[in-house]
Order: sequence, then structure tokens, then C-alpha cells
Amino acid sequence: MKLIAGSPGTWSGVALRVSQCIFAAASVCTMVTGFGFSNYTAFAYMNTVLILQFIWSLGLACFDIFSLRNKKDLHDPAIVTLIVFGDWIMSVLVFAGASASASLVILFTKDLDFCKVYSRLACSQFVLSTILAFMVWAVDAASSFSAFWLLVSFF
Amino acid sequence: MKLIAGSPGTWSGVALRVSQCIFAAASVCTMVTGFGFSNYTAFAYMNTVLILQFIWSLGLACFDIFSLRNKKDLHDPAIVTLIVFGDWIMSVLVFAGASASASLVILFTKDLDFCKVYSRLACSQFVLSTILAFMVWAVDAASSFSAFWLLVSFF
Repeated sequence: MKLIAGSPGTWSGVALRVSQCIFAAASVCTMVTGFGFSNYTAFAYMNTVLILQFIWSLGLACFDIFSLRNKKDLHDPAIVTLIVFGDWIMSVLVFAGASASASLVILFTKDLDFCKVYSRLACSQFVLSTILAFMVWAVDAASSFSAFWLLVSFF
Repeated sequence: MKLIAGSPGTWSGVALRVSQCIFAAASVCTMVTGFGFSNYTAFAYMNTVLILQFIWSLGLACFDIFSLRNKKDLHDPAIVTLIVFGDWIMSVLVFAGASASASLVILFTKDLDFCKVYSRLACSQFVLSTILAFMVWAVDAASSFSAFWLLVSFF
């Protein structure tokens, strides 16, 4: 059984999944407690994608912990291929959401000065939520790469 | 010499590079002829990235044509690794730009109704330019994957 840091069936892999869950939950919570987020499609899209990411990462974390505690080998090409595809799709969706939100944040804080004009708008929360979404993407890319490396090592 | 469709050193690879150049140039031209684009950071960012993409694709197209006409073998792991990394970075940047622009287009056409209020704003051009940018990304992903496949086949 090959041990690649961060790949499925390792404790470092569980740590990556748990970080994804924490960052995704933190990003969604920061966004939904901010006034005015629901009027903007990009923020709503990012929230939806991050909730999907949370479910996906939580599921995989439980699966990893289960297989580690029961000493089951997860290193089956079919399972790893499925995880690589899922991770790849999720990271593309999260990156699209984070970029879309970053674009709105820049528009509000710089281009249109909405944050100064409408002082109730929770701009600092939007900024924090977007940064957290980019962190989810970075950790997602890390687990996607290590799972992919594991897949390549099968052939 | 392995022949993978769309990889460096093949005519299909040249066709992909030329399509990237055409779509990138079309997207930039559509955007810069639209009234009001320069006020928005996301649109300016997308234009910059697409100009970079145009230069990168044009350079690689010329390199491919040169090597095909002179029958030089481009299938060297170092060159292919460089092309894969370059393509990967460019496709991430283009995707970020396209997502950011899509978010602004949705904001203008749907969330804030800017397009109805400010009828001079070239919304239809912004939409077309964003769609073309996503097409650049799709073709970029195709050449990136085929170059990556070629790289994997070396090992």
C-alpha cells in the first residue's frame, strides 16, 4: 500500500478534508450573517457550491476515518478515480464561485464605492468570506493532486 | 514519436493554438469596443489575461509550425513540461477572468438592472466577450490535457 501524503486512506488526507469542511463552513457562515448578500447571484452561487463542498468533504473524511480505523485498503483504482474526478469538479466550481465573488467585492469596494455609499452593506464580511473560499480551493487542489498522484502510481 | 491529437508538434495542436488566438482576439475586440468596460476591474483583468493568452498561443503556434515544417521532434520531456505548466497557469488565469466577468454580467443584467437603467452600457458585448473567454478556456484545457497526456506517456 503506497503512502502519499494527503491521499485517500491516510491521516493527512483526513486532515485536508477536515480543513476543507472548516474553511467552507466558516466562509458560508461569514457570508450569510452579512447584510445584503442575498441580493447578489454570485454570492448565492458561492454559498451553494461551498455547501456542496462541505457535504463532499465531510463524506470523504468519514469514509477515510472508517477505512483507517477498520484497516481497510482504499487504494482501489476505481475509488481513487471517482475521488479525483469529484475533487476536480468541486475545485473548478469553488474556484469559479470565489473568482465571481472576488469580482463583486472589488466592484463594491473600488469601482463603484458601494461600501462607502451604503454603509450597512457588510463589505468586510464579503471580503473575509471570499478569502476563505480561495483557501477552500487551495486545500481542495492539494487533496486533488495527491489523489491524482496516487492514481498515476497505479499504472 | 508518439502522436496524440492536440499535443505539441502536431497539426491538430496548431489548430487548437490558432483557435485560442482567434477566440482571445475576438473576446478582447468585443470588449474594448463596448462602451463603459474600462470602469470595471474584472473586465480590465480579463482583457489583460486574454492578451497574455494570445501572445502565449501565437508563440506556441509559430513554434509548432516551425518544428513541423523543419521536421524537428518537439517531444522532449523538458519542453512538454514547460508547455503543460504554462498552459495550466494560463487556463487558471483565463478561467478566473471569465468567471469574474460572468459575475459582473449577471449583476448588470439581472441583480441591479444596470443594463435597462443605463442603456448606453454595452451589455450584449460584455455577454459575448465573456462567452468567448469561456471558449478560450475550454480550448486551453483541451491543449493542456493533450500535452499532459503526452508527458505521462514519457514515463
